[in-house]
Amino acid sequence: MKNQEKDATLSRATVSIFGQEYVVKGTEPMDYLEKISAYVDKKMRQISRKAPNLAPTKVAVLAALNIADEYKKLQDDYDAMIKLIEEEKQPRFS
Amino acid sequence: MKNQEKDATLSRATVSIFGQEYVVKGTEPMDYLEKISAYVDKKMRQISRKAPNLAPTKVAVLAALNIADEYKKLQDDYDAMIKLIEEEKQPRFS
Repeated sequence: MKNQEKDATLSRATVSIFGQEYVVKGTEPMDYLEKISAYVDKKMRQISRKAPNLAPTKVAVLAALNIADEYKKLQDDYDAMIKLIEEEKQPRFS
Repeated sequence: MKNQEKDATLSRATVSIFGQEYVVKGTEPMDYLEKISAYVDKKMRQISRKAPNLAPTKVAVLAALNIADEYKKLQDDYDAMIKLIEEEKQPRFS
């Protein structure tokens, strides 16, 4: 794909995360970009409610850590499921 | 589980993320906490290398967005796989 064509499929969304505006770009639809932005915003607000004096950078880092935790746990579940499926494919007796 | 007992199973790791120290607590083993911290640190450094003038809060928010993106995509894959497994369980003819 040429660069120009590639650019044509780029979505761009202006989103607000923890009171700051960000221009988020990606090949995904705009509503997807808004969805993940809203998710990060929600996480930051949850953390900030629990620790109102925390500096915004720390709030963002803790949000990233919490999301990374959910991601890694899902990755473990996913890998375990793939392993189970692979095992089921094996002949029981050989 | 009593609070005291619960506390006894809490891990605590002092980690360095993007040059800042954080005390991360969780019920997971210490090496897990270190693993996800290293992951967030790596993401922030990747973003900062591409945009060296970006403020640390923005670097952290963009890292959170990138991790949320990976998480959501894995979630979609996971859901699709669960759906496939459910469909396979259904009788083909009924």
